Amino acid sequence: MTEQTAQQKGDENTVFIGKKNTMGYVLAVVTQFNNGANEVTIKARGKLISRAVDVVEIVRHRFMPGVKVDDIKIDTEELTSEDGSKSKVSSIEIKLKK
Amino acid sequence: MTEQTAQQKGDENTVFIGKKNTMGYVLAVVTQFNNGANEVTIKARGKLISRAVDVVEIVRHRFMPGVKVDDIKIDTEELTSEDGSKSKVSSIEIKLKK
Repeated sequence: MTEQTAQQKGDENTVFIGKKNTMGYVLAVVTQFNNGANEVTIKARGKLISRAVDVVEIVRHRFMPGVKVDDIKIDTEELTSEDGSKSKVSSIEIKLKK
Repeated sequence: MTEQTAQQKGDENTVFIGKKNTMGYVLAVVTQFNNGANEVTIKARGKLISRAVDVVEIVRHRFMPGVKVDDIKIDTEELTSEDGSKSKVSSIEIKLKK
């Protein structure tokens, strides 16, 4: 393990959903399982929450039928923008287990 | 209870998220709790899943701090359009408990 990946240990086996297309994130999750992970967590915020659910559903129905949803958490995060103003955004964490 | 509401018994204490604004659904959930419900389930499909999470977060953080998330389920539903073609859409069910 390199120093950099050691520092990111808390984010190991985590896939953050962004604005790329859904199948890219599906591939990222499947790759983590194929590389030996027993658990993979998918995280998303705001409007991307729907895409996180799509990713999970495609992974378990189309690619890895043995993978189960272990836990789903929702929360609110506070974001501070460049001008210092604060806004709240919903978030989701979906933990998958092999 | 009127005949009509008796027929809809399976959907009692359920709020379906649609395209109206978020606060309308927040109000619907709060109203159900205030009318005596101990559990309210919020359901949404597709891109509206993000809005369902927003509704839940606003209800429990801003209006009803005693309400907890009891269970979250995600699933895939198959829709048949008018021309008979089928498509799949992700769905979420969030159960809140007083």
